Amino acid sequence: MCGIIGIIANNSRDVSSQVLGGLLTLQHRGQDAAGILSFDREYHRFNMHKDLGLVNNVFNQKIRVDNLKGQMAIGHTRYATTGSDQSCDIQPLVTGFPHGLAMAHNGNIVNYHELATSLREKYHHQFLTTNDLEIFLNLFCQELSGTRGSIENLQNAAKAILENAIGAYSIVGILAEHGLFGLRDPNGIRPLILGKKVDKNDKTKIEHILCSETNALNFLGFEYVRDISPGEFIFIHHNGEIFSFRSQVSKTKTAHCMFEWVYFSNAESSLEGRSVYQTRLNLGIELAKEIKLNYGSKIMPDIVCPVPDTSRSAAIAASEILAIPYRECLIKNRYIQRSFILKTDEERDRAVMLKLSPIISEIENKSILLVDDSLVRGTTAKRIIKLLKDHGAREVIFALTCPPLKHGCFYGVDFPDEKKLIAVEKTTQEIQEEIGADELIYLSQEGLKKAIGLNDLCMACLTGKYPTDTKNAKEFTTKRNINRKEFS
Amino acid sequence: MCGIIGIIANNSRDVSSQVLGGLLTLQHRGQDAAGILSFDREYHRFNMHKDLGLVNNVFNQKIRVDNLKGQMAIGHTRYATTGSDQSCDIQPLVTGFPHGLAMAHNGNIVNYHELATSLREKYHHQFLTTNDLEIFLNLFCQELSGTRGSIENLQNAAKAILENAIGAYSIVGILAEHGLFGLRDPNGIRPLILGKKVDKNDKTKIEHILCSETNALNFLGFEYVRDISPGEFIFIHHNGEIFSFRSQVSKTKTAHCMFEWVYFSNAESSLEGRSVYQTRLNLGIELAKEIKLNYGSKIMPDIVCPVPDTSRSAAIAASEILAIPYRECLIKNRYIQRSFILKTDEERDRAVMLKLSPIISEIENKSILLVDDSLVRGTTAKRIIKLLKDHGAREVIFALTCPPLKHGCFYGVDFPDEKKLIAVEKTTQEIQEEIGADELIYLSQEGLKKAIGLNDLCMACLTGKYPTDTKNAKEFTTKRNINRKEFS
Amino acid sequence: MCGIIGIIANNSRDVSSQVLGGLLTLQHRGQDAAGILSFDREYHRFNMHKDLGLVNNVFNQKIRVDNLKGQMAIGHTRYATTGSDQSCDIQPLVTGFPHGLAMAHNGNIVNYHELATSLREKYHHQFLTTNDLEIFLNLFCQELSGTRGSIENLQNAAKAILENAIGAYSIVGILAEHGLFGLRDPNGIRPLILGKKVDKNDKTKIEHILCSETNALNFLGFEYVRDISPGEFIFIHHNGEIFSFRSQVSKTKTAHCMFEWVYFSNAESSLEGRSVYQTRLNLGIELAKEIKLNYGSKIMPDIVCPVPDTSRSAAIAASEILAIPYRECLIKNRYIQRSFILKTDEERDRAVMLKLSPIISEIENKSILLVDDSLVRGTTAKRIIKLLKDHGAREVIFALTCPPLKHGCFYGVDFPDEKKLIAVEKTTQEIQEEIGADELIYLSQEGLKKAIGLNDLCMACLTGKYPTDTKNAKEFTTKRNINRKEFS
Amino acid sequence: MCGIIGIIANNSRDVSSQVLGGLLTLQHRGQDAAGILSFDREYHRFNMHKDLGLVNNVFNQKIRVDNLKGQMAIGHTRYATTGSDQSCDIQPLVTGFPHGLAMAHNGNIVNYHELATSLREKYHHQFLTTNDLEIFLNLFCQELSGTRGSIENLQNAAKAILENAIGAYSIVGILAEHGLFGLRDPNGIRPLILGKKVDKNDKTKIEHILCSETNALNFLGFEYVRDISPGEFIFIHHNGEIFSFRSQVSKTKTAHCMFEWVYFSNAESSLEGRSVYQTRLNLGIELAKEIKLNYGSKIMPDIVCPVPDTSRSAAIAASEILAIPYRECLIKNRYIQRSFILKTDEERDRAVMLKLSPIISEIENKSILLVDDSLVRGTTAKRIIKLLKDHGAREVIFALTCPPLKHGCFYGVDFPDEKKLIAVEKTTQEIQEEIGADELIYLSQEGLKKAIGLNDLCMACLTGKYPTDTKNAKEFTTKRNINRKEFS
Repeated sequence: MCGIIGIIANNSRDVSSQVLGGLLTLQHRGQDAAGILSFDREYHRFNMHKDLGLVNNVFNQKIRVDNLKGQMAIGHTRYATTGSDQSCDIQPLVTGFPHGLAMAHNGNIVNYHELATSLREKYHHQFLTTNDLEIFLNLFCQELSGTRGSIENLQNAAKAILENAIGAYSIVGILAEHGLFGLRDPNGIRPLILGKKVDKNDKTKIEHILCSETNALNFLGFEYVRDISPGEFIFIHHNGEIFSFRSQVSKTKTAHCMFEWVYFSNAESSLEGRSVYQTRLNLGIELAKEIKLNYGSKIMPDIVCPVPDTSRSAAIAASEILAIPYRECLIKNRYIQRSFILKTDEERDRAVMLKLSPIISEIENKSILLVDDSLVRGTTAKRIIKLLKDHGAREVIFALTCPPLKHGCFYGVDFPDEKKLIAVEKTTQEIQEEIGADELIYLSQEGLKKAIGLNDLCMACLTGKYPTDTKNAKEFTTKRNINRKEFS
Repeated sequence: MCGIIGIIANNSRDVSSQVLGGLLTLQHRGQDAAGILSFDREYHRFNMHKDLGLVNNVFNQKIRVDNLKGQMAIGHTRYATTGSDQSCDIQPLVTGFPHGLAMAHNGNIVNYHELATSLREKYHHQFLTTNDLEIFLNLFCQELSGTRGSIENLQNAAKAILENAIGAYSIVGILAEHGLFGLRDPNGIRPLILGKKVDKNDKTKIEHILCSETNALNFLGFEYVRDISPGEFIFIHHNGEIFSFRSQVSKTKTAHCMFEWVYFSNAESSLEGRSVYQTRLNLGIELAKEIKLNYGSKIMPDIVCPVPDTSRSAAIAASEILAIPYRECLIKNRYIQRSFILKTDEERDRAVMLKLSPIISEIENKSILLVDDSLVRGTTAKRIIKLLKDHGAREVIFALTCPPLKHGCFYGVDFPDEKKLIAVEKTTQEIQEEIGADELIYLSQEGLKKAIGLNDLCMACLTGKYPTDTKNAKEFTTKRNINRKEFS
Repeated sequence: MCGIIGIIANNSRDVSSQVLGGLLTLQHRGQDAAGILSFDREYHRFNMHKDLGLVNNVFNQKIRVDNLKGQMAIGHTRYATTGSDQSCDIQPLVTGFPHGLAMAHNGNIVNYHELATSLREKYHHQFLTTNDLEIFLNLFCQELSGTRGSIENLQNAAKAILENAIGAYSIVGILAEHGLFGLRDPNGIRPLILGKKVDKNDKTKIEHILCSETNALNFLGFEYVRDISPGEFIFIHHNGEIFSFRSQVSKTKTAHCMFEWVYFSNAESSLEGRSVYQTRLNLGIELAKEIKLNYGSKIMPDIVCPVPDTSRSAAIAASEILAIPYRECLIKNRYIQRSFILKTDEERDRAVMLKLSPIISEIENKSILLVDDSLVRGTTAKRIIKLLKDHGAREVIFALTCPPLKHGCFYGVDFPDEKKLIAVEKTTQEIQEEIGADELIYLSQEGLKKAIGLNDLCMACLTGKYPTDTKNAKEFTTKRNINRKEFS
Repeated sequence: MCGIIGIIANNSRDVSSQVLGGLLTLQHRGQDAAGILSFDREYHRFNMHKDLGLVNNVFNQKIRVDNLKGQMAIGHTRYATTGSDQSCDIQPLVTGFPHGLAMAHNGNIVNYHELATSLREKYHHQFLTTNDLEIFLNLFCQELSGTRGSIENLQNAAKAILENAIGAYSIVGILAEHGLFGLRDPNGIRPLILGKKVDKNDKTKIEHILCSETNALNFLGFEYVRDISPGEFIFIHHNGEIFSFRSQVSKTKTAHCMFEWVYFSNAESSLEGRSVYQTRLNLGIELAKEIKLNYGSKIMPDIVCPVPDTSRSAAIAASEILAIPYRECLIKNRYIQRSFILKTDEERDRAVMLKLSPIISEIENKSILLVDDSLVRGTTAKRIIKLLKDHGAREVIFALTCPPLKHGCFYGVDFPDEKKLIAVEKTTQEIQEEIGADELIYLSQEGLKKAIGLNDLCMACLTGKYPTDTKNAKEFTTKRNINRKEFS
């Protein structure tokens, strides 16, 4: 998971500070690194600043953004799934040869090794990073080499990606002097949104934005235009003209990642016209309905309590449907990210207390319906349930707004090896015992679809039905992390 | 506001890692600096590490704590109210002459300048910091000078503080070789808790803790013994024996700061036997009751919504009493502390959006009962209400769980000059107009007392009735910040 | 001025630690930045580390070098003449498209702007740095694009540089998978040396080195093979085979920079077979001879004293020829690089005392023959002479081992604008008065040539006869420093 | 070894920038840490900045010094002999209780443990550092406690040091509000100089300086007044009045450390009226005379060569006496302090080449008289001689301006354990073989005395006759380095 953004103005206004504002609203999509690159048509040059860390840390001085002059800019906030976490892998990437070209992306290439080997052997390319993005960049460069960089040339370059790269990818990029472009994979797995802002005082001054989520639009005062289509390449010229091209490949069935609504995206965003916040309320409603239907009076908790923060909306909605009081008996500590102080097993068990403080008066002697978004390894859930029990909970019913995760993801979600997904080898009954819940309740796949309200979803992690070829998917997870030590 | 902690074991176990754990749970009391000091009876020496920053940043390497050997240690997490934010003011402070003595404190001395001048002129002391704590330390040193540091000597030293220092202060300290001590001001304004842990396998191994809040006890596995009494000096010898002494001065009326329950303390803590979390639910209940009583059907909001995080419990309770749905339509962004990117007025208005993302679907066309803990300057409230209105709120009723703040605090709460408190010169009607609310509702002073359930409260910021002499209180706020530049 | 080095082994031995050792011996050629890049044929990848600072600071952890695996590596130590001092300009530079190619260089391109404009307009290249090296890299890439990187392809690429780039440049580079190469400009202005090391135990194991000076060879245990010829391109295959090609252009007259012997190069090095140390003794001998001849008994100093460190050898030799005692009455302070503490004019005059401590007992009442290497602006000489006079020198005769500098250098020597060269507008008599010397003596151009013992010298800064076209030389010094703020 | 300095103005001029200038000239006396403390009589407070590192690094921002307001200030540059190199041991040290008192010192206490134990047991002092200086500070505080800090009180405090502390120590200090003081041990082992500067325009404005060496006076424009006497305590009141007191103890025989002339002090300084530079010339003269006398024509080297930098003057003088050419065939690399790159034995042997580059043309086939200041362990000498031989030296005659070091130093010279001094267990012949010299020549003790021109010298390291009691000297070297990890 990563957050991407690109902005272009059809006038001389510098756009980097807006790109920074947008990155701040996309911070939840990646906290490992951040970067912004601009192109300055006056001085004919790229400007860039990128580093490891949160957006606010990477851009901790105003001068950092002010230096990034130019009326077109792209930004990236990185969540390191594949590739190393070395500085060579921080985005955007940029090249000056054969054309001035910069890119940032969100997603993963399934056939990375196949493509890398082909480019190396056929064209003698040498890869400097372990990042998928360099494949995209080199495919583009190879097509643009020797051309003058016209729209047709760019379309051919986009085709080279859409027809060769298998996987999930949304890309924003800049062609020096010319404009901003965006690209979404043929299945539309990862989101990419188009927005627009017209100057109130001068209607001829127009800015366009391409970004991962609509919350950036709202924050920056852009209006939503549309989601980029699966398999679409869009080019926005510096004069404001827009060119669009859609790959034939994208007749493939659309498959939007359902996890964007369940967990990744900001509550404030809408994807494919479906509000994330509303979907999470719906997830709570569907979950409550299924509980009523399946358990009736067998489940009569005293309170409904979320595992903060994501599942709060679902828990509130469920509490209303079930007519059971909503309470927060786990208070999230906003200062603690991680701590090294806990040595013994007893102390490690207590580690979770630093992150989630238990409110004893709400827990003692209560039957608690604990709502969480999803269950991956199960280790944290186990610790939270133990924490509640240790502080006097009479009963913990653990309810999830996501059905059992039974298959790995090759499209950018950082799921562990299939073997480590608790639902792969264990039955619901076994999981319930393992995590120490008195009852374990999953939302059904039908309930999930109903809550989102779309049919064209990628639910491969639940069903095993992958929307793309997965021939090279195995080596994808194992071969990548060549131990690159230094490159700066 | 600051958080303090001291732990002593009657055996050879090193306690610094526990002190660190405790500081992590007290982080909400101060984020400016942190420090731990231990005394090692084997090598007869103090060990200390302290620096500007969050606890986790100051102790970002395990070795930092492991080096702090010793079976007695004190820790501090600093919120800079008075004194500079220079490194010379980071606590604990320590001296080797005339005895080995270290201290950390929470609170403020009202007659700082009077005491400093007296010590300087009478005894030729030279102050090296701008920190209240140095006054306490020097009063102690002056009394201990030339003595052998017996219990009686220590009691005299404590008396010198209790009988001379006017203000709010809870202190933890170490007398080298001998033990850990604690001290609470005669009014008991700031909290100080005593706890105890007996080794399960060897009942003779006992550890004692003195700290600001009970949540540290719970996290570290200590049991609560009692709150230290107003005007009490307690000494815990390294063999586990406890000596206690209570100042005659403390016959003064007890006056616990009500703001500890309303805002400062961790929801999980209990002060003077009154749960903070339960008190916050009570605040919501009392607020809802007063709304019903005073407004009846004149106020019929669609939803009750908290300004996260503190007022969440009160809002949940109020929603139940009022039988109106609870919704969170402002999502707190956990990555953003502050940002420099916003330049224009329009952008500054939008700054609040980075911290609190509005959920449009919950806001549009709704009448919202917005619950917050307190109203100080009113500037943030104004921005939040504007944010809700800009995103379509039909009506915003702003309700506060704290009555109007009309007087400055000299006891450690970082209220601005009285003139900047919005309730000092404006009527409720004027404030309502200023912040743009459709209705502004304050909890009554009676409701506040009822919610906390105690009579011995300091409510000086509401009533102007200060529990101590305030003769020198004015110069206190103005004279202190001598611009000390370098001292490291 | 910069120092460059490349090493390749025909076996699997990692060579980066040797490159680091070599850079340490070349540190005098540039103190602004340093970098090493290696190519690892086992993992088919480049490894690089580079940063601002001295070699020892950039490589301040052993792991930094150990990570740079590979049997071929190049290194660079930078002196920032043109281009910014930003991190984008630190060498080596590397690209992975269209081939894996890395380079580092020493020197300057006179027609930088002409070439940059041509590449931009003809081929749409976009420049990412302000560094000459990117021109070399792009000329190479353009020629190699679409080829398989054979020797012939490389020769064509080298030709593209030799036939288009006007100026002084010595280059070392790596073609991924294949080998190490070197290139020297058609005039041979900057040095480039070839060396060789055969393993004592296994004669088939051979390493080759290309570097700026022979002192690196001596330190690393390589034997000197030869100086690379003007206009020569040399390629050393990873199996040890050597290919050489010499440009037709190089029939141009050879013109080695005389300042390498006078000032730049390490005393221990030999260039074009001429020892730098011996040359500096010769400079002192020639200077003394000319003094005898021109002044006879008119000049009878008490002592000969060098301005340390460069002119020490010349002063020793002169003292012997003149039969006057050698003394060091200015002691160089090895801790002081620069200091901000001096505010008033009086203090600034005294600044030089921090760098050069005067030995009063040697100075008082003495007539001093002060020997220095060259006179550029004259400001430091003026301060030194004043220092000697202030400490009692009866007479200061200032003698220089370099004739008057009357013309700017476009080949990498950081001379100021011609106008700031003191010898451009002033006569020797005027300079003597300006700097406060009792007598000012320059070595003659004939004396200089005799001391070096070569005829093919570039003495353009003395004579104004530039060995290359200088059509674009003016804009070269003015246009370059585009204010690039951020690129990392 | 350390450098100390104190300056006081009898008017309101800030003196810290002068103290900084002085520290820069004393940098050779210690490179581990630096600090400056001032007292500001206007604001009645101390200001201080100190840190690990060179003076220029610790004070790398102008604001650092500008913040240190006040007309009296002391400074220290540290060479860590005993005590840890932790930040708790950086000087100056300061206390505010019982009086405002700050100190810095140069030297070592022989009976540290005895004194520390006594203060701890008798008065319950707790030591916070492992630094000798804290003993001095506590002795002072103990005497000043309860007094008003009059001259008589100060004299008593000085007596407490002079009568109890055994060892070598020169101290500068400040008594808050009152003035600057200095103290020199009863043997006068370490230097301490008094200087004075009268304002040219206003003769009533006077500044005094106390510092380690006269080169600071010269640089800062002070005139030399006198060396502080052995056993003298001097107090300079802020109005310019001077009080002096000399301990009865100091009838002890004066014993100035001869190594100050041989190695430590700056060539530019004079100690006890004897010029260091002139002394070093004399050492060369005496050495040459002894060679002539003892060896006659048996020693006929081709050149005289110094090991730079210290022995340069001696080598020049010797070359003149012996009428043999002076040459520098080892060029000191001013960029290399240390390097980690050398792994194998062969490489370690070559390490010395990084620091001292050999000039082959001067070395080959030559008989070299190599002059160095002293021989401690012999390991570096061995490597240098091997270096010369490896580069073709026919013969290396190694001559030292200091007689054999046969006894440890307890007065601040960082000699290793006696066992590691090469001259302790080996004869001159054995040493000669060990280090690989063809001849080894030591200056005689008589020659040394004659060169310095004083009789009252401490030559304990040569003779074993220590000027002070050395009862506790052994534990001094072993017991001190308690491994203190953290104190900041």
